[in-house]
Formats: sequence, structure tokens, C-alpha cells
Amino acid sequence: MTKNKGQVTIPTDVDVIDDTLSLIEKWGADAIRDCDGTDMPDELKSMDIKRYATYYTTRKDNEWAKQNPEEIQQMYLMSRFYTAVDDVLRIPLMKHFYDKQLQVNTIDDIKRWWEVIDRTTGDVVDPSEWDYDETTKEVVLHKVDIFHAYTVSFLAFIIWDPVHMYNSLTNDWQGEDRQMTYDVRQPKTKEYAINKFKHYLEEHKEIDVIRFTTFFHQFTLVFDEYARETFVDWFGYSASVSPYILERFEKEVGYKFRPEYIINQGYHSSNFVVPTKEFKDFLDFQQREVAELMKVFIDLTHDAKKEAMMFLGDHWIGTEPYGKYFKELGLDSVVGSVGNGMTLRLISEIPGLKYSEGRLLPYFFPDTFYEGGDPMKEAKVNWVTARRALLRKPVDRIGYGGYLKLALKFPDFIDYVEKVTDEFRALYSKVANHQPYVAPFKVYVLNSWGKLRSWGSHMVAHALEYPETRIYEGVLEALSGLPVDVEFISFDDLLNDNEVLNKAGVILNVGDAYTAFSGGNYWANETIVKRVREYIYEGNGFIGIGEPSAYHKEGRYFQLYDVLGVDKELGFTLSYDKYNWEEKEHFILEGLPKDLDLGEKIQHVYAFDDTTVIRKTNKHINLASNTYGKGRAVYMSGLPFNFENTRLLYRSLYYAASKEDEIKRWYADNYNVEVNVYPSTNSYCVVNNTYEAQSTVVYKGDGTSFDITLEESEIRWFEM
Amino acid sequence: MTKNKGQVTIPTDVDVIDDTLSLIEKWGADAIRDCDGTDMPDELKSMDIKRYATYYTTRKDNEWAKQNPEEIQQMYLMSRFYTAVDDVLRIPLMKHFYDKQLQVNTIDDIKRWWEVIDRTTGDVVDPSEWDYDETTKEVVLHKVDIFHAYTVSFLAFIIWDPVHMYNSLTNDWQGEDRQMTYDVRQPKTKEYAINKFKHYLEEHKEIDVIRFTTFFHQFTLVFDEYARETFVDWFGYSASVSPYILERFEKEVGYKFRPEYIINQGYHSSNFVVPTKEFKDFLDFQQREVAELMKVFIDLTHDAKKEAMMFLGDHWIGTEPYGKYFKELGLDSVVGSVGNGMTLRLISEIPGLKYSEGRLLPYFFPDTFYEGGDPMKEAKVNWVTARRALLRKPVDRIGYGGYLKLALKFPDFIDYVEKVTDEFRALYSKVANHQPYVAPFKVYVLNSWGKLRSWGSHMVAHALEYPETRIYEGVLEALSGLPVDVEFISFDDLLNDNEVLNKAGVILNVGDAYTAFSGGNYWANETIVKRVREYIYEGNGFIGIGEPSAYHKEGRYFQLYDVLGVDKELGFTLSYDKYNWEEKEHFILEGLPKDLDLGEKIQHVYAFDDTTVIRKTNKHINLASNTYGKGRAVYMSGLPFNFENTRLLYRSLYYAASKEDEIKRWYADNYNVEVNVYPSTNSYCVVNNTYEAQSTVVYKGDGTSFDITLEESEIRWFEM
Ligand SMILES: [Mg+2]
Ligand SMILES: [Mg+2]
Ligand SMILES: [Mg+2]
Repeated sequence: MTKNKGQVTIPTDVDVIDDTLSLIEKWGADAIRDCDGTDMPDELKSMDIKRYATYYTTRKDNEWAKQNPEEIQQMYLMSRFYTAVDDVLRIPLMKHFYDKQLQVNTIDDIKRWWEVIDRTTGDVVDPSEWDYDETTKEVVLHKVDIFHAYTVSFLAFIIWDPVHMYNSLTNDWQGEDRQMTYDVRQPKTKEYAINKFKHYLEEHKEIDVIRFTTFFHQFTLVFDEYARETFVDWFGYSASVSPYILERFEKEVGYKFRPEYIINQGYHSSNFVVPTKEFKDFLDFQQREVAELMKVFIDLTHDAKKEAMMFLGDHWIGTEPYGKYFKELGLDSVVGSVGNGMTLRLISEIPGLKYSEGRLLPYFFPDTFYEGGDPMKEAKVNWVTARRALLRKPVDRIGYGGYLKLALKFPDFIDYVEKVTDEFRALYSKVANHQPYVAPFKVYVLNSWGKLRSWGSHMVAHALEYPETRIYEGVLEALSGLPVDVEFISFDDLLNDNEVLNKAGVILNVGDAYTAFSGGNYWANETIVKRVREYIYEGNGFIGIGEPSAYHKEGRYFQLYDVLGVDKELGFTLSYDKYNWEEKEHFILEGLPKDLDLGEKIQHVYAFDDTTVIRKTNKHINLASNTYGKGRAVYMSGLPFNFENTRLLYRSLYYAASKEDEIKRWYADNYNVEVNVYPSTNSYCVVNNTYEAQSTVVYKGDGTSFDITLEESEIRWFEM
Repeated sequence: MTKNKGQVTIPTDVDVIDDTLSLIEKWGADAIRDCDGTDMPDELKSMDIKRYATYYTTRKDNEWAKQNPEEIQQMYLMSRFYTAVDDVLRIPLMKHFYDKQLQVNTIDDIKRWWEVIDRTTGDVVDPSEWDYDETTKEVVLHKVDIFHAYTVSFLAFIIWDPVHMYNSLTNDWQGEDRQMTYDVRQPKTKEYAINKFKHYLEEHKEIDVIRFTTFFHQFTLVFDEYARETFVDWFGYSASVSPYILERFEKEVGYKFRPEYIINQGYHSSNFVVPTKEFKDFLDFQQREVAELMKVFIDLTHDAKKEAMMFLGDHWIGTEPYGKYFKELGLDSVVGSVGNGMTLRLISEIPGLKYSEGRLLPYFFPDTFYEGGDPMKEAKVNWVTARRALLRKPVDRIGYGGYLKLALKFPDFIDYVEKVTDEFRALYSKVANHQPYVAPFKVYVLNSWGKLRSWGSHMVAHALEYPETRIYEGVLEALSGLPVDVEFISFDDLLNDNEVLNKAGVILNVGDAYTAFSGGNYWANETIVKRVREYIYEGNGFIGIGEPSAYHKEGRYFQLYDVLGVDKELGFTLSYDKYNWEEKEHFILEGLPKDLDLGEKIQHVYAFDDTTVIRKTNKHINLASNTYGKGRAVYMSGLPFNFENTRLLYRSLYYAASKEDEIKRWYADNYNVEVNVYPSTNSYCVVNNTYEAQSTVVYKGDGTSFDITLEESEIRWFEM
């Protein structure tokens, strides 16, 4: 592998053989892959190149699914809410679901596996008080409390794989069978799937890498009666269930399973909701069982002298790359889509792999590569965004996905990717396996998920963000490219592990009130409050963004009001005069523009008397700092991602850590420029993150400085 | 009393005798009054005019206060929150209070009447674990949980009457004694005050009306160490306490009193907080005891052949004009400040009086009547605003307060008041004692206070509004001048009285989540939810404004989500796709401008599928309607007061009541114009509420219409 070749994977198909060959040359690719809906051309099967084959354990075999309907994959669904206005209430189960995707499971005992809940009281309705009318697909409640609202939680078979359905609709695949699913966790299908895989391995000697897409359980993705997406949860476990699995779960944990452990008021125990004990038990159970079965497939792959690669997406549920079991499985690689810096770090830091691979954007799909489209723009933003994170912890390979013939119509794009692949390889050779310089303190991101959902807080699907969470996503995106050592810790860690905050550091707590991210009822726990207060008081830092530590109790909303020096006005203390509104100059604003976008979502935050107000909008605090014992806190109303805010966060971290004096080491005055340092190779780079030239003063490690001007997006390397 | 004379009270003083006489003539005044800081001139004592004398039962006698320090009025205060960072925690009680206003009460048993609370757990600290250090005025906690936060609730003597202090500071009174308070509820002072009052009555034969200012307990008004207001609650009972009173309360209710019943997490059980059972018990107890003692003073007044008038302000706490006991007291009159339409109705609807009197604004105080000031502007707005409400239910008299010599410097103002007094008398003669035409349904305002706080929801002091409550105050202000029959009902009424919703009607629930106004945990009560749902379903209406019925439970925030057709996104259901955002044409928008100000405070409200979205801002619903059985609901994100929004509310009421067909009866197409009808006198008026000319079509009761153009602020009367 020469310096200008390798570490790049490209898609191929039977209709683009010559172009594949020329792009292998141009982009220095050393691996080719098929995609959902494409095939590996025979002509390339004997070439001296690594060949990836996508492998689906759970679909592309409708025969099996049809023969074994009871082992089709299942999902917990909840009906809409229906208010009883009469003696009898009929609840239609499928009215707002897509009947080509989902089919009510009446094979298993509905009285055991379904749950009708009075949502006005929270009580479970006795199963003797309802029946299911198969003809109308309605649950009929015979005995209701009038004007109470009810829901039905029920199991449904996934008769069209949601990803196949999505791809099929997005790419307008005509006349193809809808791919059904089957559940490899269940006994008959497990045996069948393993044998089938053995057979596949034997028949595909030319394949070097089995790219599992993925293992067994699809993340939650549900369509409505108009085939529109109605609910998605990339972290969601609701499609990883079946009576077979749940009976095993019950046996293990020693208590009765309730559908509500998954359904959770209709929130489907999503990443946004503080997890219950039972849901955490279920996660652990699923991870262990999924890991055991993954191991079977991985070992078979290795026995066939192939590599096992996992796609971090689609049916990844239960694999949890940052979980307890994953790193021991011997998986060779994980590949995932790189939407931004966060998702890059999510992939590149997965433990226990030989290598990781990032699929850059855009996918060669018709939604971007249409006549008049501008894939270049997306590619540039994607690369510059990903590069910040690559410079901290690179993936080992990059690649592209989709239909090559679409990309070929955009020669500029083809040329730009050549530059990207060259730059990637050059960068990798300097960065990989070298511990970069980091700030002299740790950054602890504290939420309900901790390490398990490293880099995934607020994430929905790859790099998708909601307007409502834009002000929080920015925090991890900023961190993904900053020279700081980030550790994800959970409230359970704080409760159970005295050593978790064992180094000098700054704790970040980021999110809306009562969500899993800010922590909700964990903040009603005195031990949590006490530990964090003590840690800060002893000389560490805290940065709260949005509604940090929010839990309304005993006259306060932010339970760390004393650390933060701010609280939110809920409407109960309006009659207290609040006099501290004057904006002060502050260290953390140095070099930043006057106008900062700290989001408009979080309002009505006010400061206590001794707090330093830094930025406000009318009578809403956007930015403030506070001293707490030997420690410090910074409050921000939000932190949408941009380079000003990234710098603001970086300066806030140093301020909170009381290390202001040390910030101008490997530092550029211009916030559009960042410096990354690799002491073990005596090298560092200065990077322009924008699409125009930038000039700046750069400070070196000894505090000396020099001026530099960089071209658009330029990365320039130096010896120390 | 001729048509152009009477029903007007003016202030006087010894330095404006001639001017008083000429203004009596010009304004047609039939009563004169002294004010705090003025005296009744001897020259006017024998004139043929009604003379009011302000009477203070609780101050203006520092001798008595000094001789009886244990009967000085007291107030419950709470220290700031202090976090224990060491084995011992010292909490300074007075650090943030004004020591010329308040003095720690150490006369009574502090271990019994104070309370130290661990605000991290909510636990009360055992009194054996703390002491009070008199020299430093600190409570010393000897045994703390480190990094828990603590507060001290304690009693303080009110050594400077807060209103005297406010007037003294506002008017810069120099060299005058600070008036102390004393508590007329306590035995020695009660006897003394009664005798003193008897003596006063004997010595003031020339006085016709005793204007009590007020009775015994000041509303909560606390100043900080810089003599700035720090907390105010016009409905607040925290200054109505003393061990003497509280022991009587304990005896009556049969359970032990806790300071927390008043302090309530530092919220001081304000009007904004859902009242606890204990606080409601305390309110009832105080009302009854205050009423008993009021009766003594009223009877003495009557025995002396004088009238008893109560000022609705200052020391009004416990009198509760809409409470159970007030209407039986034989009080002749209540006078109050008219800040707007709401406060006018608050005064004019008080039951059990011979007459009511409204003090119009501005007060003749130097903050308005300074050189270069514009008192005319305030006077015009005040009059036009008050007039809307006068036309529904007038006060019987109007008047002015303050220092006449200040007003005399503004001859335009003097002339304008002449017009106001003439217009008032003309209007009164047509309106008083005649039931005006109202819409064919009732409007029920549902909150935690109900009738007791009629027209006072969200009120802080007279007509003071917070930016945070602007969107709610507008609702009552709009209602104060609309031809609808308004009834205030409480959640307790809903729970205890099956008949409270006994007519066709529209329920309004208005306010921020968890406040007393929207209702908080009342919405966790299935009976409340069920009753309201049923009432609407059977064909009535519901209008929810802000965060109506909000209580996060079982997957829903607005517990009447099904009635309203909307809910608020708290961050748990972001991954549900929400497709209903298209604005529809709607009956309630007819004749209204495209841009409506529905406030920006309440965001993240989304609509369910069948709901009619009427107005939205980005993905935030501002206005929507829904059908619920035979009934209807309207949701509004807020309703700041203006004439567009007043019309919007009026149309929404008719829509919610399913009476659209009947709205164009006594109706003006132009929303700046309103029509008031008095069937018993066969008369109606058309009123221009603006300061410029307005043209409109006016619809009469039979549906016929005519065109009209009105001068600025004009009111024109017609025979039917
Ligand atoms: Mg104030
Ligand atoms: Mg979506
Ligand atoms: Mg509906």
C-alpha cells in the first residue's frame, strides 16, 4: 500500500465495471462493495482488491418468512389514545399504522403480551375486561370508566423490513417483492440462518469482508397509514421483542415482563427518556444475548478466512458498540455513516476492533445526485466537518455508498473526492495511533446513558437533528474536534462508582428538563446533587447548557442553582425582584463576535446576585458564570454548532477548569482556525475550517506565536 | 344631586383650599378626602359636602408600638438558600432584608415558630441541631449533611409599615418618623385600637365616611438591604401571622401549624402557586377572624352615624371581598384603584355593599405630575380602558387620589377630568342597575382560586403585569368589557359541587403549567378531567390558553389533549412525525388582521391529526380548534390585551359554544368598536375604544345593520 493508495472503499454494480476500475485508480481505492439493490460484478471478483459483501441475516428470504410466520420479527406498538365516551370503547389498532409494514400478532397469547392501560389513572385494565375483534382489528373494552382515555400496547409482525421499505420508496424500486423479516434469535430461524450463512460463506470464496447489515434487530422505524414515517428511534429497542425473547428475559430477571417497560407511555423508552430500571435490565439482557449470537456469526466468518464487519445502523439494536460485551467479540471492523464530527467519533472510538470505516456523505442516491443537484457542496461540508474529528481520533478507512453510476454524472464531485481521499491518507499517516495533545483536564459529559451512548446524546438517526435539539447537538459536535479528553458518564456511574470523577475536570450537563440528557429525577437524588456539588466546590468545573440539573423540587428548578448561579423562572417567583441583568466583560468572550447564537429555546433563566451575567436577551440569561468554592460554573442557554460557539465552549472549559492561563498553548486567535498537536511525532497542524481564506496568530506550546494565512479549508502541517 | 354633579371624590389638603372649591364646582365633586401625608383643611370641615377621612388601624402611633413591642405586626420570612460546605453552617437571616423595615422576632419561642429545612431532601432539621446567634443574626446548624442546602423560615417584626415606607421613599418625605405597625388582632392592641377608634369618632364629627386603609394586615411587601422591593404579593398572607394568631389557628383546625404552610418553598403561597389544603384552611381561618373584628369597627362607625368604606389595598389581607364572610359585614363601600378593566370589575362586583368607588389613574404623585410629564396620556388610556368595564358593571362613584397641588399645574388635565366626570355620570345613569345584554352562554374561568379571586387571576398589585403573564392578563382584561356573563370557578368547586357547571357555557383555563391558574396537580385528578371532558362532550365549549390542563402524566402534558386537539412537545416525542401544520381559514378570524400577537412565550405546541390549525409560528401552534363530541375547543398560545385579541376571544367564545349564528347581534364589524345593550331601558351604546375616528357596520338585535362613524373615544347612545 503506497502513501497515495488504500484505506478507501467504493461501491460498485454490474453496470459500472469500467468506471469502477478507473475510480479505483483515481481515488486509490483498495476495496469495493455492493449495496442494498446492487450486485458485485463477476468481472471484479478475481481482481486484486478487497471485496465487501453486504450480508443480511434477517431478510432477503421471503420463502422462509412465509413458512415460519411465528418467527417473523415483532415490534411493540401502542395504539393512539382513545377516550371512552360510552359504555363500550373500541380501539382500532392499525388505523394509523401501515398495514403493508405491520400485522397484528394474534398467534401469541394476546392476554399475556398485550396491555390495555387507563391513561387517565395509569392503571392496567384487567384482561378479562377486553377482547380483540379480528375482523375490525379493534380491541373492545367492555367495562370502561367513562371519559377516561385508554391505549393498547400490542405486538405486531414486521412484514416489510423498514429499511428495505425506506430504500424501496426512496429509490422508487418497482415490481420488487417486499422483503419480509425473520427473527434470528428464535430457535428454528437461528438454526436456519446459521446454516444459510455457512452455505453463503462456502459459495462466496471471492468475498474478503462480510459486511453484516447488521445483525438481528432493526432500530425502531414505523410508518403510518399513508406509508409516511410516523416514529423513528435509532436507539430504539421496540423492534427487538418477541414472546420467545421476553420469556427468557423474565426468567433471567426474576420478575414479570410488562409491555409498558418498552412502551413507556408511548415514548417507546427512547433515548430521550430517563431509562427505568426495567428498561436498563432489558438492554443488558438483549446486549448479552445478541452478543452471544453475533459471536457465532463472527466465528463462522473467521473460520472461512474472511473478516467480519458490522454496519452501525439498520439492524444494529442490541449490539451496542460501547456496551459491556461488544469489545470481546473479535469483530474486525465497524462501518458507519459519517454525518458529522460526532458520528465520526462514535465510529472511530469503538473499542475492540481491528479497524473502523467511515462512510462519507453524500450517499450516491437520487435525492442528491439528480440533474441540477449540488453534491459537491454537501461533500465539502461533510469533509471539513468530519476532518475536525478525524484529527482527534481518525477512522482507519473511508468510503462511499450508493449507486456509482449516479456519481459519475458529476465530474467535479469525482475530482473533489480524489482530493479528499489523498488528504485523508496524508492526515491519517500523521495522526493515527498518536495520542494528540489535550487540555490539562478531563471533560465529563454527564447524562442518563453515559458511556453506552458515547457521542450519541440527542442523536436520532445519523446526524439528523431536530430544531428542538439543535442547541444541544452543537455541544458534542464542538467537542468532537476539540483538543480535550472527553468521557461519557452516567448518573448511575455517579451513584455506584466513587472513582468515576477521579481526575481534574469539567462536568457538562446538557439538555431539556426531565430528558435523559439533563437527567430528570436523578436530580431528585441527594447523592447525585451532593457528589457534583462537592466535586465542583473542590476546584473543578461545571458547564450547564439548556436546563441542566432541572427537577422542580423544594423551591428550585435547577437543582444545581447554587453551582450555576442561575435558575429558571417557572412562574412561581415572578414577584421576587431580580436585579442582576448587567452584562459584564468576560474571559470566555475574548476574540468572539458580539452577537452569539445561543438559541432562543430556553428562556426565563435569571441570575442570582453574585453571578456574573455575560449575555442576556431581554430578561433571559444566555450566558453566565459563577464561582463555587474553589470551582467554577458556566451556564449557557444553548450551543448550536458553529465555530464561534465551538470556541466559546473551549474557552468556557478552560475558565471552568480555572486554567485560563494555559489556554494560549497550541491556539489560534481566529476561531475559524484550530490547531492539533501530535507530540510523539513532533508535528502539529493548523486547520482552516471554513470555505474562505483565514489569517490568524498561532500560539505554540511554549507560548511563542506566529502569523499565518490559510487557503480555504487548508490544513497545513508543521514540525515542532 | 343634579345630573352634572355628584359621584365624584377629590383629594384635598390645607395648602389648596381655594382650588379644592373651584374643582368641586368644575368636576361636580360631592366628596373630598385626605390622603396619606395630607390633612383635611378646617375651612372645608363645615362645607355641605361629604368628607372622607383615611383611617389607619395599624399605624400612626409609634408610642403604642414601642410600648408593646411583642404586638408589633409580624411576617414570615425565609432566608436565602445556603449550601453546607463544612461541618457547621451559619445562615444569616437579615443579610438580604432591610433592617429598618424588619427585625427578627426572638421574643417568641424560635424553636417552635421557626423552621430550618434541608432543601435537598425537604426534611425539617430537628430544632436541637441549630441555634440562633443574636450578635451576628445567624442561625447556626451544628449538624449538617454536607453539600445539602438549607433555609430558615423565621418571624420578623414589621418595624416600618411597608406602605408608609413606600410612600415615604416615593414622595421623598424627609425628617418624618418611620411609622411602626401593631397588630390589632392581638389582645392588648385590639382593646387599645377599638378605644382609640371610638375616641376618634367622637372627635371627628365633621367626617362622614371612615375610609379604612385598610383593616389589619398588609399584603406582603418586603424590601432588601438596599431598600429596594425584593418581594411583593398583593394576595399574600405572610404578613398576617403571629404566634398568637397561629395558636388559635392550630386549635381550630386540630393539627400543628408549620411555617412551611406559609413559606411554601419560598414561594410564600402566592397567588401563582396551587394552594395546599393547609393554606386554604389558613385563609378561611383568617377571613373569619378578620371579618369578626372588621364588624366591630364597622358597627362602631355606624353607631357614630358615619359610613364605613374600605380601601381595597394596603392592609386588606383577610378581608377577601369575594370570600364567604365579607358580604354579611354591612360595610357601606369599597374604594379601590382602577388600573384597567379587570380592576374595575374587581371593585364593582363586590357583593354586599351600598356603593363602590373607583380611584382613577393617575394618582397625583410626583412620579407622573413632574415638569414635562404627560398625565393626560395616562388619564385617557385609563378612562377608555376602564369605560369598557364600566359599561358592563359600573362602580357607583369615581375619584382621584394624591396631592391636588401637583395636578393643578396641568390645566389640560384638569379640563380632561371634567369631561371624564361628566361622561361617567351620563353613562352611569343609563347603565347602573340595568342588566346588560349578554351572550347566550356562560363563561366559566376555571383556576385554583375560583370566586375568591374573581378578576384577580395573575394580578400582582393593581394592574401591574409581568412580561411573563402579559399573555394571560389579556384574557380577563378582554372579558371585563365583553357582553358575556363571567363566573369564576375553582377546581374545588368542580370536585365538590355537581351543579357548578349547570348552564350552557364555555370553560376557560389560562396560564402556565403547574401554576394555580392552569391548575397543576388538580389535572392529575381523574374526577376533574372526567367532569370537564364530559361537559364539553355534551355540547359545551373549552378555551385553553397557554398551558391549559398541563400536568405531565401518562404520556401527555395537556391532560385535556383530546378536548384541545393539541399537546406540548416536552422533548420525549420529538421522534414522532407531526404532519398537521397547514393553517386553515376559520370563523374566529373573520374581520381580524392577518398578524395577531398571540405571544411568543408558549412554544412547541403541536396539533393532532384531526385538529384545525388556524395560526402557527414555524412549528409552534398559536391558534387551533377542535371538535369534541357535540362540543368544541379552541387553543391559543396566549392572548395579550388589545382590541384584535379581544375580538378574537369573543369570536372564539361563540365558536366554542357552537353559537356562531348568533354572534352578529349587537355587534360591530370593526373590532375597535363595541356595542353594549340595556334591554330594560331600551337603549344601547356604540363605543370607540381607540384614540382615532372609527367607521363600522353595527348589527342590531334583529340582525339589521347600519353604518356609523365615531370620533376618537366617542360613546354614542341610541334608543332601541
Ligand atoms: Mg417587583
Ligand atoms: Mg421523523
Ligand atoms: Mg377532534
